[in-house]
Amino acid sequence: MDKLSSLTRFKASCPFLGRTKTATLRTLCTSSSPRFPSLSALTERATKCPVMGPALNVRSKEIVAGYASVAANSDFERIHKDKGVFPPAAASIEMCPHASAARAAARMAEDLAAAATKKKAASKKSEAAAAAAAGCPFQQKAATEAASQKAAAAKPKTHVGFNYESFYVNELEKKHQDSSYRYFNNINRLAAKFPIAHTSNVREEVEVWCANDYLGMGNNPVVLETMHRTLDKYGHGAGGTRNIAGNGAMHLGLEQELAALHRKPAALVFSSCYVANDATLSTLGSKLPGCVFFSDTMNHASMIQGMRHSGAKRVLFKHNDLEDLEAKLKQYPKETPKVIAFESVYSMCGSIGPIKEICDLAEQYGALTFLDEVHAVGLYGPRGAGVAEHLDYDAHKAAGNSPNPIPGSVMDRIDIITGTLGKAYGAVGGYIAGSDDFVDMIRSYAPGFIFTTSLPPATVAGARASVVYQKEFVGDRQLKQVNVREVKRRFAELDVPVVPGPSHIVPVLVGDAALAKAASDKLLAEHNIYVQSINYPTVARGEERLRITVTPRHTLEQMDHLVGAVDQIFTELGINRLKDWKAVGGRAGVGMADSDKVVEPMWTDEQLGLHNGTTPRTLHDGEKAIVDLKAVSVARSRFNILLGAVTGKVEAHRPIEGAHPAAGMKMKTSKVQLSEDIPVPPPSVEVSA
Amino acid sequence: MDKLSSLTRFKASCPFLGRTKTATLRTLCTSSSPRFPSLSALTERATKCPVMGPALNVRSKEIVAGYASVAANSDFERIHKDKGVFPPAAASIEMCPHASAARAAARMAEDLAAAATKKKAASKKSEAAAAAAAGCPFQQKAATEAASQKAAAAKPKTHVGFNYESFYVNELEKKHQDSSYRYFNNINRLAAKFPIAHTSNVREEVEVWCANDYLGMGNNPVVLETMHRTLDKYGHGAGGTRNIAGNGAMHLGLEQELAALHRKPAALVFSSCYVANDATLSTLGSKLPGCVFFSDTMNHASMIQGMRHSGAKRVLFKHNDLEDLEAKLKQYPKETPKVIAFESVYSMCGSIGPIKEICDLAEQYGALTFLDEVHAVGLYGPRGAGVAEHLDYDAHKAAGNSPNPIPGSVMDRIDIITGTLGKAYGAVGGYIAGSDDFVDMIRSYAPGFIFTTSLPPATVAGARASVVYQKEFVGDRQLKQVNVREVKRRFAELDVPVVPGPSHIVPVLVGDAALAKAASDKLLAEHNIYVQSINYPTVARGEERLRITVTPRHTLEQMDHLVGAVDQIFTELGINRLKDWKAVGGRAGVGMADSDKVVEPMWTDEQLGLHNGTTPRTLHDGEKAIVDLKAVSVARSRFNILLGAVTGKVEAHRPIEGAHPAAGMKMKTSKVQLSEDIPVPPPSVEVSA
Repeated sequence: MDKLSSLTRFKASCPFLGRTKTATLRTLCTSSSPRFPSLSALTERATKCPVMGPALNVRSKEIVAGYASVAANSDFERIHKDKGVFPPAAASIEMCPHASAARAAARMAEDLAAAATKKKAASKKSEAAAAAAAGCPFQQKAATEAASQKAAAAKPKTHVGFNYESFYVNELEKKHQDSSYRYFNNINRLAAKFPIAHTSNVREEVEVWCANDYLGMGNNPVVLETMHRTLDKYGHGAGGTRNIAGNGAMHLGLEQELAALHRKPAALVFSSCYVANDATLSTLGSKLPGCVFFSDTMNHASMIQGMRHSGAKRVLFKHNDLEDLEAKLKQYPKETPKVIAFESVYSMCGSIGPIKEICDLAEQYGALTFLDEVHAVGLYGPRGAGVAEHLDYDAHKAAGNSPNPIPGSVMDRIDIITGTLGKAYGAVGGYIAGSDDFVDMIRSYAPGFIFTTSLPPATVAGARASVVYQKEFVGDRQLKQVNVREVKRRFAELDVPVVPGPSHIVPVLVGDAALAKAASDKLLAEHNIYVQSINYPTVARGEERLRITVTPRHTLEQMDHLVGAVDQIFTELGINRLKDWKAVGGRAGVGMADSDKVVEPMWTDEQLGLHNGTTPRTLHDGEKAIVDLKAVSVARSRFNILLGAVTGKVEAHRPIEGAHPAAGMKMKTSKVQLSEDIPVPPPSVEVSA
Repeated sequence: MDKLSSLTRFKASCPFLGRTKTATLRTLCTSSSPRFPSLSALTERATKCPVMGPALNVRSKEIVAGYASVAANSDFERIHKDKGVFPPAAASIEMCPHASAARAAARMAEDLAAAATKKKAASKKSEAAAAAAAGCPFQQKAATEAASQKAAAAKPKTHVGFNYESFYVNELEKKHQDSSYRYFNNINRLAAKFPIAHTSNVREEVEVWCANDYLGMGNNPVVLETMHRTLDKYGHGAGGTRNIAGNGAMHLGLEQELAALHRKPAALVFSSCYVANDATLSTLGSKLPGCVFFSDTMNHASMIQGMRHSGAKRVLFKHNDLEDLEAKLKQYPKETPKVIAFESVYSMCGSIGPIKEICDLAEQYGALTFLDEVHAVGLYGPRGAGVAEHLDYDAHKAAGNSPNPIPGSVMDRIDIITGTLGKAYGAVGGYIAGSDDFVDMIRSYAPGFIFTTSLPPATVAGARASVVYQKEFVGDRQLKQVNVREVKRRFAELDVPVVPGPSHIVPVLVGDAALAKAASDKLLAEHNIYVQSINYPTVARGEERLRITVTPRHTLEQMDHLVGAVDQIFTELGINRLKDWKAVGGRAGVGMADSDKVVEPMWTDEQLGLHNGTTPRTLHDGEKAIVDLKAVSVARSRFNILLGAVTGKVEAHRPIEGAHPAAGMKMKTSKVQLSEDIPVPPPSVEVSA
């Protein structure tokens, strides 16, 4: 596809920019207040730059196309009218969405150029590329333009005393300076084409290799069927907090399901696992007298915030380092309340916490264990309960769906498990599981739980259907790991450096912020592959990476495409291969002295079914994904009482029965010609209570 | 309906409890470890108690029926099998859901009895009732039983050193002691029967008079149609954070819509408005050097948490008291960054903040204004933008849907507006709106925004459809206020005390925790009306109330029913009337010295259309609610590019088009007999970008 076509078409069809070229825009761009370059100048310069050109091109196109997707060409006039932009008033130019897109693109280009310059200093290897960037006519002009833009941008509402607006600008400037300013890509994942998404242009499709819908459960047919049916019966929002009108059978059912999943007495659902972690740790830390937290240095932001908010003391221990943890635990009396907060799968490096050994220390020193299984639930264990379950795979498999704890098992020894519904389960929301009184205390004291509208019934119903489906069907988990092994194997063959680890995360080390961003941009612009680059502060400086997530639904051909594209871009941008890291002593676990030690994957060959040939087979393009009918049937049965029993084809795309939400409404006569009545479907199936 | 029938039927059909009467249960109930009373004893004693009987009856039935709704009678055996409960093993009794329901019911009964006793001391009026409660054979036994239950409950996992489990029990005990322990009612709001919900028993329906789905938008047909279509096209979860794969056109579109609603340059959506307030205030307070917050004493928990988490200084000013605010503002130099944090509609008392006057003070003393419009968006203003818009009603009406600020208007003068999608818009989620750089700074720095999975596309699409519908149609807002006036008028006629206020909140003062709870219980048990009682800490002690929310969809007959039931219960329980409060000098604004001053409602007669007869008419039972076709059409048009254009009947109950989420999947053969293929619908409509 011609990368410039939509941009050019858009410009030509924009009546405002067309006029401003000869009217107001010239004044603004050339004289004392050059708030932004004209779109045509921007485009021209961008494409001339050999290094930044492609990246800038796709990004500015993204932004511009963002408006284009909202506004088809024929709609431009209407948009301008709606926005109150009528040429040729100079003052109104700031309201033009196209002009503001151009401003944003200019700023983004400046960041890219600055990153290229910084990289030049940091990395010998890419000197040639950086020199080209420095010679880029765009970059030179961008610096002066951005400076005057910034000055001009500080115009909004002024207050007496403190200047709030320039404070915001300064805070943002820090982000631009250290390359941690984030530009969001516009990615719309298509249920029917998983793992394909469209960009801001609905016709432009890309392969997504970095989403956390790890199993594709966001489009599982029994999940969507359940949601359609729940929407029909219970509508959208919950309508209140859990205490006031927002607590229903769907919420209670999901919590019962999650408690049983983890074989704990109780569970509690929150708006997100960010909120679950924050609320739970801050409540524990502020309530337990003299509480001390012991926190892994790689813990997620939500846990860090929760511990901070509690006001309790926080002692950091080195990532997964049991000796360091023990040395710190032993400094406190046994009577001191302690909480060891850690994760099972660390999402950015793919390492796995030593759960069993941490339980040993906790028992020895009298600490509570708080385990975040956010990147593990749905993905590990015979029923998807996480790594704690996986560590006693056979015992949990044998115990089936009993909600009773298995005494002495790792999952039983953990006091508090937190998980998400927003990743492997393809939904949204988070939860905690633990003892009855612990959960009841959090329920009773955590403001982040108490004072917020509960999740919609359809959301929690969809999440429950997903949890049940994954409890009953191990095939998605197996195939995911099989595909992860395959992608890792192929990268290894090509000497592409992957941070070694036992989990499903595939972190491809780049080791430089600008290169990681450029690689991500080139994958998107030139290969239609979306992998977000992970830079500081999410990972340490110098450990920047492409974090790849492989699903059971990625095909062999998509793997070929990904691996080939990454290999090509590593060559084009001169990014370090594994041998290069080995030569300099390694980084981030890649090419280190001990890196020849093989890291055993969490899923054994036997658990994957490799010993007896029951392993699911990787898909080819065009092949249909497996839907397990028994799992569908069990998931459906959970909703028999509330939604009515359903058998037969699983109809993801339309509700099967349920009351009509619009019944009891009449249409008001109006100028718009629409039919005046709403058909009322047959009444919902009667169910016995 | 016979209140005991489901309970009795359940007990008779429970094979486990049936056996335990002569096997294990007797041992547990009579000897040294009486963990719980048998269900039959509980039921018997409860019904004998003249005062607590009805309340306990409905509550224990609620809990027990919670299991009954999950498990039809014929399913009991299967449930016990799933839960691993096989009689007659004594150890397994704790796993029986029915037995644990009985335990919970016992604890609830204890709380009710204790509340009755406390009330006795507090309130002369209800002495007779309390005495009856004290004489209740159930209450006497409950006290001793609950004490031994508590001792027995502290058995779970023990740690060396600190005893965490008994700590949880003690914290919960505090809640029981001060009557602030919350029992959640099981309320399932039915889309097709709004405002009707079913309880834990799907056959038992109640009228909901306390939900925050203020306009019934949770079941608006264009909202549901949009959600069905979005589910089909984009599936369930967003699949990532906004930065990694979780940012799509639906999210950007909603933010654009909200910015335009408030005529601000930018808006940002969060998981909830709790998170929006918490994240925004904590980021502002921790970033602004030496920031001081000025906080209304009645501010919502989310704002209080955000200010606390920031670590910045927080100065409280008396509720809506401009003199107090000014006295405190003037103690700080103009150069000190200040944030005045307040609300438009205070949700528990229905008062409205003096927004314009606070803007005057903010400008004079150099403070930012942070206005929480959570209980106002969708409900005030010609387009539903809130009270700040309502204060310049005519100007905003005239300006139509232009996103440009109206210079000098109150909404323009406010720096930061926060709102929710979970109340009047009937969805879930929250947002902030303000200047470009302010919003960009929060987007870039707030961990609660950055590190969390974004809301599902269908959720944000449904929310956007709702916002657009309400922007275009004022009728729901008008009819809501008309109905509020009517309910207030009827209560006044009967001398039922309502806290006076200009907003849509109808707080019926009870003035005693136990009485408020009893009134709420009696409304539910005897009148099938659900109004949650609001007790400490949500309101001050002695100001306990029934907080009634009136919607445009409540019928005249439902109003008759509500007002009659409240009047009857006030008599039965001897709750103070307005004249009683007047006699003792008033409380919570009711019957105070100045209470003869009429509080003018925010919506004038003219704004309601009373001057020219365009006022919508209150519905009668069986009448259909109005659906405005122009608003439907405009809401639909927002999704033309992403979902395809749609005209004709608004089909709330099924999607009209869109790709099939299950396409590309094949069904795995299995024992369960379901059809093996999934029908693929016609491809989605092609749209031009």
